[in-house]
Amino acid sequence: MIKVNRYEDINNIENEAKKDYIDRHSPFVHCEKSAKAGDVFQVTVKMGEEYTHPDDLDHHIATIALYNGQTKLAESNFFAGALGGQGKKGHQTITFNIVLEKNAKLTAQSYCTKHGLWESGVIAVEVK
Amino acid sequence: MIKVNRYEDINNIENEAKKDYIDRHSPFVHCEKSAKAGDVFQVTVKMGEEYTHPDDLDHHIATIALYNGQTKLAESNFFAGALGGQGKKGHQTITFNIVLEKNAKLTAQSYCTKHGLWESGVIAVEVK
Amino acid sequence: MIKVNRYEDINNIENEAKKDYIDRHSPFVHCEKSAKAGDVFQVTVKMGEEYTHPDDLDHHIATIALYNGQTKLAESNFFAGALGGQGKKGHQTITFNIVLEKNAKLTAQSYCTKHGLWESGVIAVEVK
Amino acid sequence: MIKVNRYEDINNIENEAKKDYIDRHSPFVHCEKSAKAGDVFQVTVKMGEEYTHPDDLDHHIATIALYNGQTKLAESNFFAGALGGQGKKGHQTITFNIVLEKNAKLTAQSYCTKHGLWESGVIAVEVK
Repeated sequence: MIKVNRYEDINNIENEAKKDYIDRHSPFVHCEKSAKAGDVFQVTVKMGEEYTHPDDLDHHIATIALYNGQTKLAESNFFAGALGGQGKKGHQTITFNIVLEKNAKLTAQSYCTKHGLWESGVIAVEVK
Repeated sequence: MIKVNRYEDINNIENEAKKDYIDRHSPFVHCEKSAKAGDVFQVTVKMGEEYTHPDDLDHHIATIALYNGQTKLAESNFFAGALGGQGKKGHQTITFNIVLEKNAKLTAQSYCTKHGLWESGVIAVEVK
Repeated sequence: MIKVNRYEDINNIENEAKKDYIDRHSPFVHCEKSAKAGDVFQVTVKMGEEYTHPDDLDHHIATIALYNGQTKLAESNFFAGALGGQGKKGHQTITFNIVLEKNAKLTAQSYCTKHGLWESGVIAVEVK
Repeated sequence: MIKVNRYEDINNIENEAKKDYIDRHSPFVHCEKSAKAGDVFQVTVKMGEEYTHPDDLDHHIATIALYNGQTKLAESNFFAGALGGQGKKGHQTITFNIVLEKNAKLTAQSYCTKHGLWESGVIAVEVK
C-alpha cells in the first residue's frame, strides 16, 4: 500500500526533528476563501511553513498536484536544482491560476523522492 | 481528503455495474514473482482484467504510476485518443523495464479523469 | 519530425485569425531581468498576451515547461476544465519560484492538444 | 532556443565517444510497419541500440514521449534508480499499447537530465 502522509499540527509535537520532518514535507494551499464564478483564482501551494526542504539530487520535492475534490486540476513536476541544488534548501512553491464555477474543495498532494506522498488539508472555497 | 480507491475481489460482488466499475478502474501489476539482481525485469501494468474502460475525452485513464514501496519508479501519462478515442474502450496497458537490486514490493496507482485515484494490490518480488 | 512552433511578432501579421492563432498558443516568460544569486526568483509563464485559448476537452493547453538553457527546471500539466471548461477561454498561467546561482537563459515550451508544441523567446537573466 | 538533438547514423561517425554519445541518447521506435485499425498495437521505445546510458542521480533519462504526427499520445517519466541506480547503465525502455484508426507517423522524444532533448526518426505505420 502506498502511504499518503497527512499533515499533523506541529504545535502539538515536541520533538524538533519530527516537527521539521512533518512541516517541510507538507504542502499548504494558500488562497482566498471565496471566489467569483468564472474569474481567475490564484492558488499557491507551498511546501512547509517554518522548515525548508533539501533540493538534493537524491532528496527533493518532485511533484505538487492540485485537486478539486477527487479531480486533478494540474500537476507540476520539479527537477532537483530548481531551488539552488545540492546542499541548498527551500520551500518549493507553485502558483496555479484556475477558474471555478461552483464551490470547491482544494487539496494538494506532493511527492518527495525520499519520503513519498504527502497531502494537505482540504481548503473549502465558496464560489459566488 | 483525496480518496484512493482500492481493488476489491469482484467475485465477491453481485452487482454487475459495480463489478465493471471496480475492475475497469483497477490497475493490475503483472510480473514474475522473482528477479535476478541487476537484470532487466519487465513489469506490465494493465487496467482491468475483464472489463474495459472508455477512452473518451472527458473520461479516460490519464496516469499509471509504478511504486516500489513508497518510492515512485516511473509514471506514464496518457492522452484521450491513445486507445482509439471517443466511444472506444480498452485496457490501458504499459510495460516498464526496471532493474531491482533487492526484494521489492511493487504497487501501481492510476488516475481516471472521472473517477479519481485507484491502487493495485502489492506484488512482492524476491530478488536473488 | 515533431514541429516546435515559435513566436512571431503578431504586429507584423495582418490576418486576424493568424494573429489570434499565434498569440494564444505562445508561452510568454514574465520575470525580472536580473536576480540575486541564491534568492527565490519568480517566473511566470502565461499563454498569450492578447488572445485567450479554449479550455475544451479536445483543445486545451496541456503542458507548460520551463527550461534554463537546455535544462528543464520544471513542468506543469493541466487538465481541461482548470480554466472553466468547455466553451470557456483563458490564458493558462503558472508561476514558478526558482533559485538561480548564475546567469540564466529561460525559455518556456507549451503543448496544445490540438496544435502541438510552442516555444517562447529566450529571456536572459543576469544573476549577481 | 531549446535544442532538439536528432539521431545521426553512427556508422558514419568515426569518433568512438561521439558514437556512444549519440546512440545512448537516441530514442528508437520499435513496432510493426502495419497495424489493423482498432486493434491494440504495441510500440516500444528504447534508448540506444548499442550503447547504454547512465542511471545516475544527476544524469539519467527522465522522459520518453510518443507522438503521432504533432499529437502526443503518451509520456513516461522515470526517476533515477529505476535502472539500478548510481554507477549502473542501461537502455531505458517502455512499451506503449495504442490503438490506431488511420495511417500514423510515430516519433519519440526523450529528455536526458544532462544532455537535453532528443528525437527519433519518424516511423510510418500503415493502418488497414
